[in-house]
Amino acid sequence: MKVRVDITLKPGVLDPQGEAVRHALGALGFEGVNGVRQGKVIVLDLATDDEQAALAQASQMAEKLLANQVIENFTVTAI
Amino acid sequence: MKVRVDITLKPGVLDPQGEAVRHALGALGFEGVNGVRQGKVIVLDLATDDEQAALAQASQMAEKLLANQVIENFTVTAI
Repeated sequence: MKVRVDITLKPGVLDPQGEAVRHALGALGFEGVNGVRQGKVIVLDLATDDEQAALAQASQMAEKLLANQVIENFTVTAI
Repeated sequence: MKVRVDITLKPGVLDPQGEAVRHALGALGFEGVNGVRQGKVIVLDLATDDEQAALAQASQMAEKLLANQVIENFTVTAI
């Protein structure tokens, strides 16, 4: 089954990629953009069909490799 | 209001980042990972409070700047 891991920067952590996007949107003439934050999505295709097991495995993967928990939060969702 | 733009590679487009993650997960001892795809999430904080206007504006931004529609699909969602 497929599990989606959403990884976002914690509030307060500087996001230079998001800032670059905000400036570029302004340069293209888009107005009213108060802020932009950029994150990652990782979709894992896991062999198990047990939703609870898949979510637990994906959480372990996120803790050990996918997310840097000092500056990032993550959520796992079955899809 | 905030709008979330999810950007994923189209099916069939090679994803070297996802492949790198798959190999790293294997090296860490995680088994049963059939595939990994990596995408982007961009959260826009827009000045408007009109959901339809915000979604339309976010779609335009995705078409013009955020997504490369040759190789990427995007979806916009109000959050």
